[in-house]
Amino acid sequence: MSIEAVLSRIDAGLDASLGRLFDLVRIKSISTDPAFAEEVRRGAEWCAAELAGIGFEASVRQTAGHPMVVAHWRGKVAREAPHVLFYGHYDVQPVDPIELWATDPFEPRIETRADGAKQIVGRGTADDKGQLLTFVEAARAFVAETGGLPCRVTVLLEGEEESGSPSLDAFLLENKAELSHDVALVCDTNMWDAKTPAITATLRGLVGEEVTITAADRDLHSGLFGGPALNPIRVLAKILAELHDETGRVTLPGFYDGVSELPAEVKASWDGLGLTADAFLKPYGLSTPAGEQGRSVLEQLWARPTCEFNGITGGYTGEGFKTVLPAKATVKVSFRLVGDQDPAKIRASFRAFVEARLPKDAKASFHPHGGSPGLALPFDSPWLATAKAALTAEWGVPAVLIGGGGSIPVVGRFKTMLGMDTALVGFGLDDDRIHSPNEKYDLTSFHGGIRSWARILDALAQG
Amino acid sequence: MSIEAVLSRIDAGLDASLGRLFDLVRIKSISTDPAFAEEVRRGAEWCAAELAGIGFEASVRQTAGHPMVVAHWRGKVAREAPHVLFYGHYDVQPVDPIELWATDPFEPRIETRADGAKQIVGRGTADDKGQLLTFVEAARAFVAETGGLPCRVTVLLEGEEESGSPSLDAFLLENKAELSHDVALVCDTNMWDAKTPAITATLRGLVGEEVTITAADRDLHSGLFGGPALNPIRVLAKILAELHDETGRVTLPGFYDGVSELPAEVKASWDGLGLTADAFLKPYGLSTPAGEQGRSVLEQLWARPTCEFNGITGGYTGEGFKTVLPAKATVKVSFRLVGDQDPAKIRASFRAFVEARLPKDAKASFHPHGGSPGLALPFDSPWLATAKAALTAEWGVPAVLIGGGGSIPVVGRFKTMLGMDTALVGFGLDDDRIHSPNEKYDLTSFHGGIRSWARILDALAQG
Repeated sequence: MSIEAVLSRIDAGLDASLGRLFDLVRIKSISTDPAFAEEVRRGAEWCAAELAGIGFEASVRQTAGHPMVVAHWRGKVAREAPHVLFYGHYDVQPVDPIELWATDPFEPRIETRADGAKQIVGRGTADDKGQLLTFVEAARAFVAETGGLPCRVTVLLEGEEESGSPSLDAFLLENKAELSHDVALVCDTNMWDAKTPAITATLRGLVGEEVTITAADRDLHSGLFGGPALNPIRVLAKILAELHDETGRVTLPGFYDGVSELPAEVKASWDGLGLTADAFLKPYGLSTPAGEQGRSVLEQLWARPTCEFNGITGGYTGEGFKTVLPAKATVKVSFRLVGDQDPAKIRASFRAFVEARLPKDAKASFHPHGGSPGLALPFDSPWLATAKAALTAEWGVPAVLIGGGGSIPVVGRFKTMLGMDTALVGFGLDDDRIHSPNEKYDLTSFHGGIRSWARILDALAQG
Repeated sequence: MSIEAVLSRIDAGLDASLGRLFDLVRIKSISTDPAFAEEVRRGAEWCAAELAGIGFEASVRQTAGHPMVVAHWRGKVAREAPHVLFYGHYDVQPVDPIELWATDPFEPRIETRADGAKQIVGRGTADDKGQLLTFVEAARAFVAETGGLPCRVTVLLEGEEESGSPSLDAFLLENKAELSHDVALVCDTNMWDAKTPAITATLRGLVGEEVTITAADRDLHSGLFGGPALNPIRVLAKILAELHDETGRVTLPGFYDGVSELPAEVKASWDGLGLTADAFLKPYGLSTPAGEQGRSVLEQLWARPTCEFNGITGGYTGEGFKTVLPAKATVKVSFRLVGDQDPAKIRASFRAFVEARLPKDAKASFHPHGGSPGLALPFDSPWLATAKAALTAEWGVPAVLIGGGGSIPVVGRFKTMLGMDTALVGFGLDDDRIHSPNEKYDLTSFHGGIRSWARILDALAQG
């Protein structure tokens, strides 16, 4: 079999693939709004039916919330290995503010830009219906051309990704054996730019903590008590100020345990992307990277952990002035994690750090806000090398291994619950307006995405 | 003339004095509520009429807000010097929550406690109608007994003290020559306890500043920008943490310029009051004085300046968590000042301190919230010695020189605008419930207060 035949079939079938994307976009599967629950279910049923039509053993599976779609390829494979788990989500964001949409968000259309580029416009075209269909349509072409797939494939499609995945943990645990395979492939990320394919190989994890410092049992007058009475804002500021040293490093004991230096070639390839600090920061009115000294913007963003203060409040914060010594002060702190940093250890280290700095009369109470480890697909992973070569062949430009500054919780769960690494391969672009009005997905993303998955599956099966 | 005759006349006339206090309390002179403007005016007219009845040249004087009462004694004096300015205020606080008053706030009554002590209950009995009348009634007795006063007296009664004195500055400046005399006497403070008279010789001043630190021109996602993007809460916390050293001293350059050490005998008399840190702090759930190390609670409160954070806000402060890098963070800071600390210099030093610590990309904007210097009647002032001896003679217990932790703005204005020192002599008690329901003034405060002013005026005129 030649991959070229599969690719030709993809090209010939592009209009039909597009038609199916339009059908899926027309389903208003907004997961956060209970009014759309039936539409979400229709989305799951549509996906299961399409997968079944290709030849997958597909089912809609109940959860406490919206359903999951699980599909297994039980047919012919070129090789038994690897067995990949593909993940995407068929639910979408709400469409508010609806008045900013040029046309109906659920009536997809092709818009041709002045330069001739074609964009598929509609809610979910990029996030994540168009992206998940790139994989499904690649599988369809393979089956149509060869009667089978290059390797074992299981598909998991979620219906609650846009509403915090409340049922995911339980579902993964209950179906652990069915879903645990050699590697997970997730299509929910972006290319580096419209010409340069990318694999997101690292994602930062997240530990959220809220701390409230209390002192006196009520607010006090700063004239009648100022001096003798402890001020919790002062206590809090002092603690926060000690969390970073002069070079921008986080001072928590053990914080950098599990953080590795970038391999030289990865660092070189990131430097080769040519993203200057100015180009990254200037659109937001900034000019100077504020993270650890001596590291590039991309390294600070993708490869280094952080400690950030997301919110702080205490005392009188209204108009004018009130001479109060507040009874309490609160901060919300988050840590972005990389590599093998352990969320539980970092939370414990932070709490000990705070407790050790409390003066007499101050008390701290802690409230956790989630914790997930960073994802680090080893840079020398064979999955990466294979996917990279396939993407490079498709796009004619070397694929880059990039990182993600944010968290994609499902990836951490695949790691911790199913023991699987994940390769994130996506074809979105930075201007896709996901979560916003007039969301779009470039036709080149959709078409090139389908072709890319065909090449990746083929390459994986070459071993 | 013997002071004893004046005191006897005061004793004999106490019921009549009380009747006048009742008349004044019945006037609903709530200055903050425009609905009571006519009542405030009635209060001024009542005061002016009473002063005129004693023989003062008294007038109600217009301002942009509520009127002032000014009265001059042009009659016989035992000595031409000193010329004292007496200040009080005839306006009162609102009465909300009205349902917590046992009886009508504006229908004063005498309540006899189980131990036989009598209390005058009603809005303004202590703050400040009862207190200002102690002086007026002392003058009345002197004139009745001797046909004159011991020395020159001018009376200034304000009608906007409870609403921030918006017209006071302009009035003092416009009438500077008429109001500038040898010393000001203010009756709006408390005794140390029900048996121990006190002169408030020091009051802390106040500089209020609001600072907003900004960085990026909008809120950013802490995953997608955390690291490279500067966090204003972190910048602010670092600056605030540097404002105090390990011993609790404020680190602003020049902050302690004009701050003197307490004279040994004053320190000894404060120590002699026997107020332990525990007694002062325990009612509020605290145990350890948080001010400058090595100084007593009273010294921290009355004789030392502070830097306090009265409010802080930035980023997401609602329920749950939001992974935001905020665009700005704001703090409200106040400095309590003592001695000759210069509010303008301290404001400038603080702003320079902040500016010097801003990293690249951070900006600070400042908003002033008032500034007034501390009051420090020199501890060796002859006014103090005279008043102290008179109070000690009246109460049979040595009068103590105390400080006030808060600010009484009029005292600073007398100093800066009229060039006059002020002695604060008051007869209120800590349990008077000023600004609260069921405000009261002990009959012993009223009676002893009138007798005290008679002795003080007499002693001042002895030179």
